[in-house]
Amino acid sequence: MSPSLPSNAMRLAGRPTPDLILDEARMRRNIARLRQRLAPFGVVLRPHIKTAKSIDVARQLLTDGHGPATVSTLREAEALFETGVTDILYAVGIAPHRLERVQALRARGCDLAIILDSVEQAQAVAAASGAAAIPVLLEIDCDGHRSGLKPDDEQLATIGRILEEGGASLRGVMTHAGESYSARSIAELEAFAEQERLAVVTAAQHLRAAGLPCPVISVGSTPTAHFARNLDGVTEVRAGVFTFFDLVMAGIGVCTLDDLALSVLTTVIGHQADKGWVLCDAGWMALSRDRGTQGQAVDQGYGVVCDADGRPYDNLIVEAANQEHGIIALRPGSVEPLPDLPVGTVLRILPNHACATGAQFDAYTVLPADGGPLAVWPRFRGW
Amino acid sequence: MSPSLPSNAMRLAGRPTPDLILDEARMRRNIARLRQRLAPFGVVLRPHIKTAKSIDVARQLLTDGHGPATVSTLREAEALFETGVTDILYAVGIAPHRLERVQALRARGCDLAIILDSVEQAQAVAAASGAAAIPVLLEIDCDGHRSGLKPDDEQLATIGRILEEGGASLRGVMTHAGESYSARSIAELEAFAEQERLAVVTAAQHLRAAGLPCPVISVGSTPTAHFARNLDGVTEVRAGVFTFFDLVMAGIGVCTLDDLALSVLTTVIGHQADKGWVLCDAGWMALSRDRGTQGQAVDQGYGVVCDADGRPYDNLIVEAANQEHGIIALRPGSVEPLPDLPVGTVLRILPNHACATGAQFDAYTVLPADGGPLAVWPRFRGW
Repeated sequence: MSPSLPSNAMRLAGRPTPDLILDEARMRRNIARLRQRLAPFGVVLRPHIKTAKSIDVARQLLTDGHGPATVSTLREAEALFETGVTDILYAVGIAPHRLERVQALRARGCDLAIILDSVEQAQAVAAASGAAAIPVLLEIDCDGHRSGLKPDDEQLATIGRILEEGGASLRGVMTHAGESYSARSIAELEAFAEQERLAVVTAAQHLRAAGLPCPVISVGSTPTAHFARNLDGVTEVRAGVFTFFDLVMAGIGVCTLDDLALSVLTTVIGHQADKGWVLCDAGWMALSRDRGTQGQAVDQGYGVVCDADGRPYDNLIVEAANQEHGIIALRPGSVEPLPDLPVGTVLRILPNHACATGAQFDAYTVLPADGGPLAVWPRFRGW
Repeated sequence: MSPSLPSNAMRLAGRPTPDLILDEARMRRNIARLRQRLAPFGVVLRPHIKTAKSIDVARQLLTDGHGPATVSTLREAEALFETGVTDILYAVGIAPHRLERVQALRARGCDLAIILDSVEQAQAVAAASGAAAIPVLLEIDCDGHRSGLKPDDEQLATIGRILEEGGASLRGVMTHAGESYSARSIAELEAFAEQERLAVVTAAQHLRAAGLPCPVISVGSTPTAHFARNLDGVTEVRAGVFTFFDLVMAGIGVCTLDDLALSVLTTVIGHQADKGWVLCDAGWMALSRDRGTQGQAVDQGYGVVCDADGRPYDNLIVEAANQEHGIIALRPGSVEPLPDLPVGTVLRILPNHACATGAQFDAYTVLPADGGPLAVWPRFRGW
């Protein structure tokens, strides 16, 4: 940035706190980085909107305005569709009572696909398809993280047949390496990525061997998307939190603190000098209760403290959080003195988990990449 | 309830999930219980609106429609004032940049009082008072939980004089026994309550000895409000989470599971039979990331699982949560079999922390106390 431009601290001066700040330049860099990384593999990037829940962010994430996109709620799908996004994967196992809403969106021209992993769901989807086949990806469990069928489960073909013969449409397979969030080395990240790939490629082989179609082979998580060395057989990659990154991702080595595009603006409201505490007005209502770094090598408490320009204090974290109070303190074992942060000082907190912290706010206050005036980008929520 | 009335499960049938359910009859019982308990002490109950963040709930909490009320954000104060509530305490240490909003509310006729615990805040409040004195309670630290001055801190009188001589108004002292949440016995709860009382009574004595006024002596937390045996010298009691109660409060013995007025309605979306997992559509986006029972004798995971009528399964908790997935499993060490909960089964989850779970939703779906049709009560949020 040219020295003649105002600093971010100056641009943010006078904002009410707590506030959710989005550094657009960093976000653009994060998006460009993953696009560039995946380009040589010839796969489609299907960004997950669950992190940003914002039409303005989706415009930068989605290549041509029509998708492809991944969502975690039908509310996200409906909001995206209103702005012209038509290629959407709803990547949470379908509950039968939601099929009416799925069909309503599809009837309006949205190519919304769903996922499932059981015979009972497949029967419900076939029944709901009628004359209008609902496209389905079978969810595969690659790491024991949550849902999905094992890659060689014989139910795969059974479910595929229920769909295809019942009037629905088997579009392929998908998996999510949620356990990659616990990786502790580059080698482990690469191994998770290969495990993810192998799971869906294997499942696809079983389906094809049973004479079933499997055009889409979808994998995805931010860690594996950044460390996969081989994506043979994979047609698309999903990822969400890479849009903003966060301390959990920095903790497993997927990004550095300089990549974190989201922070919470806060004001110092008090001190407990004898304890080395600085109290600020970002409590868990602003930061969320997420403690995702608790099990990592470096526990970041409720977040890393930065000055108003976004420069981290090496040894300062939000040690504890009440509803509207954050308690800032030196990291355990730190020998440096507490910096002088009088009442009224404005700080920024880097969050553990961008999805959770973002959800505490109704909008982003955006530091635009072009250095222009602050913008406000609404977020949506609910289901 | 008469057998001829529909069950809660029937009343909730067909609701979208996840959804935030409020059992109004339980809420009314909780409110009546605390009022009855405090009546013999001759103190004012100043309910905290931070838990409910709802005008409809406030109407039942506030005696005469004008207050008194406690809030954690100016947004709450503004929302209450719009409906006629005029006696409000903003119980988070004041940041000087918020004084303009405080004065704007006061100029419109709201008797909004604020709190502080430092010379620099007092100077800012005096400067902002001008011809319109802002009433202030000094925050006292009774248990090392977060902010406040020690009850015998000599700065109390200094700050009091800055306020009184600078054009603001010293209205009294207040404290919050946040550490009472970690109590492990009735005796400890009673001790926390007495510690809370003694702290503010002592601080008031110091102020009065210095010739300063101290008409209001305010204590408050849900645990201490329910277990104080002596409130001599106290003029008002604040409490918030008692409105709904939650698993944290049940865990320390302030209420039983039958008192919990809030729950999250959820639908079963899958199974991992080999692991004993039932997956539901209430992840942390619905339940919040709060793990307040983690340090208690019984860790309730992300919540206790009930049937759609609200009857708890003795040994079933939400063991883990992703953004839109809850993983339901038997408690560790349980010997009972997993109940049969097919895809589509509707359940209700009792939350760890009512304030945090409530904040994940924009409205309550209310089971009215009179057995009438479901009502929707909006929630507000933000700052």
